[in-house]
Amino acid sequence: MSADKRYESSQALFDRATEVIPGGIYGSKSPGFTVPGRFPYYFTEGAGCRLKDADGHQYIDYLCGFGSMILGFGNPAVDDPAVAQLRKGDLLNQPGPAMVELAEKLVDLIDGMDWAVFSKNGTDATTLAVSLARVHTGKSHILMADGAYHGSANWCSSNSHPILRDKDEVRTFAYGDASELEALFDELEGRIAGVILTPYHHATWGAQIMPPEGWHQEVRRLCDKEGALFVMDDIRANFRMSLYGSHTIVDARPDFIAMGKSLANGYPIGALMGTEELKKTAAAFFITGTFWTSTVPYLAALACLGEMERMDIVSHMNAMGRRLGEGLIAAGADAGYRISMTGPPAIPFMTFADDPDLWHNQEFSARMAAKGVYMHPHHNWFLSYAHKEPDVDETLEKAAEAFMEVKTVFGE
Amino acid sequence: MSADKRYESSQALFDRATEVIPGGIYGSKSPGFTVPGRFPYYFTEGAGCRLKDADGHQYIDYLCGFGSMILGFGNPAVDDPAVAQLRKGDLLNQPGPAMVELAEKLVDLIDGMDWAVFSKNGTDATTLAVSLARVHTGKSHILMADGAYHGSANWCSSNSHPILRDKDEVRTFAYGDASELEALFDELEGRIAGVILTPYHHATWGAQIMPPEGWHQEVRRLCDKEGALFVMDDIRANFRMSLYGSHTIVDARPDFIAMGKSLANGYPIGALMGTEELKKTAAAFFITGTFWTSTVPYLAALACLGEMERMDIVSHMNAMGRRLGEGLIAAGADAGYRISMTGPPAIPFMTFADDPDLWHNQEFSARMAAKGVYMHPHHNWFLSYAHKEPDVDETLEKAAEAFMEVKTVFGE
Repeated sequence: MSADKRYESSQALFDRATEVIPGGIYGSKSPGFTVPGRFPYYFTEGAGCRLKDADGHQYIDYLCGFGSMILGFGNPAVDDPAVAQLRKGDLLNQPGPAMVELAEKLVDLIDGMDWAVFSKNGTDATTLAVSLARVHTGKSHILMADGAYHGSANWCSSNSHPILRDKDEVRTFAYGDASELEALFDELEGRIAGVILTPYHHATWGAQIMPPEGWHQEVRRLCDKEGALFVMDDIRANFRMSLYGSHTIVDARPDFIAMGKSLANGYPIGALMGTEELKKTAAAFFITGTFWTSTVPYLAALACLGEMERMDIVSHMNAMGRRLGEGLIAAGADAGYRISMTGPPAIPFMTFADDPDLWHNQEFSARMAAKGVYMHPHHNWFLSYAHKEPDVDETLEKAAEAFMEVKTVFGE
Repeated sequence: MSADKRYESSQALFDRATEVIPGGIYGSKSPGFTVPGRFPYYFTEGAGCRLKDADGHQYIDYLCGFGSMILGFGNPAVDDPAVAQLRKGDLLNQPGPAMVELAEKLVDLIDGMDWAVFSKNGTDATTLAVSLARVHTGKSHILMADGAYHGSANWCSSNSHPILRDKDEVRTFAYGDASELEALFDELEGRIAGVILTPYHHATWGAQIMPPEGWHQEVRRLCDKEGALFVMDDIRANFRMSLYGSHTIVDARPDFIAMGKSLANGYPIGALMGTEELKKTAAAFFITGTFWTSTVPYLAALACLGEMERMDIVSHMNAMGRRLGEGLIAAGADAGYRISMTGPPAIPFMTFADDPDLWHNQEFSARMAAKGVYMHPHHNWFLSYAHKEPDVDETLEKAAEAFMEVKTVFGE
């Protein structure tokens, strides 16, 4: 599809980028993951729940920096203490006191977890969990769900070149299929270091799946029987289902919890938490990164957690998500579409019935982008505390138009 | 060694930290890597080349955030544009125009490199280089120097647990030993994906080693014969030897260059650059991270590069490093010590003759810390543009006292 005139600055930047950056924009931000030619590729500003793209268009945003901007873009409650420290130095050889305070705060807040270590990327945290599970158990194999996203490291990413051996000891199962999981435990008995799961299944390119009844108890039972560890990857969901860890909502008792994204409202920090039993193993492992003790993200995380506690944001985001979802279902019905909303209300994704390749999603998302609403066609969405009723209602007015336009395109 | 009263706030923070963080402080920032009980563990502020610790003591700093703070702490030329953008949103779903500008700038600046991708950690960049080398060549083995530091990923870190398989296809050789390297190429003929090297050997716990005459030509020759790729890990040295890449100073022609640390004066960004031949391989690889397109670090990097070009900082840092090194050798001699300064003048390390376990370094560093100078006992040092003659001269006055005190302790 050729480039839309609306996005000519984005397109011009992208053309320049392809000269000096492989693929122009890589990974989850590549145009091919959106609706190429009909989506903005570059943004310049954000405030609250609104973004401005490189062509100057405004959007009500439902991606929130892939989940990170839980309090909205440019939130002064987080940015004020962050900037104050930044002016006094950020990366100071050794950590600042805020690192200790954040660990204390998280241990206090997150149910069942006794310690924390911090990194930059969420991938750092999930990869560390897998390493520690192997070292602690002395066993090799890691089990994960088909299509689950646990980061961009080779052991879990879509990079499956046979010359890369990182996946040699990683096996997958269908999410929520307890008998398939049990069969894997039987097959690999004595060799399983751990199981890694998200609190619910939020694979891209399709509807989200909540855990079936009894699923996490079964995972726990199988892990205990095998002496394997249960890693909860809460990076994408964290703080939108509960302030105490998403596992508290889905009845899971993990040994490790990986966090990131929304922890510091977009400041780069990942965290791995664990139980007391695993603390010695973690202490004996070499864990480091030059930027991992920079103090600004710790202050941002403390401020973000403070705001989240103060304002009951989980209820708000889920209320806004329900309003959005119910409105989209109704607007879709008015155009003759059967719309499904899946996932927790604050982390929703919309699909059309009988649209397995998401062609309708792509058309809908492109139409919404043209109207100033950023709704990803292939990746789940996010609400933030900055989304208020008028934002949702404005979104729904535009959605009603977009559904009708989609209908015209597909001639249904 | 029991805690010094001077550092009681650091110690109190550390005691709290051990309750909620495995080891209290981990990795390269752990007290065990400094002089435990006689070094500050936590810092609160920095300005120029000076730091303030959690007990309120001031230091002239020679670690520069492990090399990152090349223009000094809290430099407004970098922080002003960074903060301006931060207030307008940092993590905006998609990249900002600055990502394109930074790639263009680096391709223009860094000799022989045709593209760049960006990450958060230096480790992300070296690990990506190794993956791309394997995918591009279809071969498995990576060669690196004994004791070299290429990041905290398991393939290159000190985490050598047998259950972790990441090192299975990594082999090491003695730095600068061309015949040992050639023997490895012979042994592994047809299986070598790449060789990774720093521009000179800056292993911790000892003197630094400059590349012997002809070393990099020999590495290139062996790589070409094997069809292997040459990865230059310039993360620690970058922009202190040359603005055009340290490889230009040490006569190396790498296929990849990994960068980080000083690229953005402490803002978290890593970069991998490569030659045109490797661009398609990189474009086909899934490379991503939630925070990797945050726009503030790109603006910081552009500002940092602009300042570095404007001010001829390489000459300045090396002049200050020479002044420091010559002064330390003279002050040491006055106390009867034969002092060696190794590495490039802007990235120096000091050792005492006949002190293989660095006991003299530890005593000297502890004494210097007590006098308000931060000189790491086990890790190479760094000069920044913020180090001026009066700072160096003040350092040397204190060093003269410290050498005498060391002599008293060891009774030489």
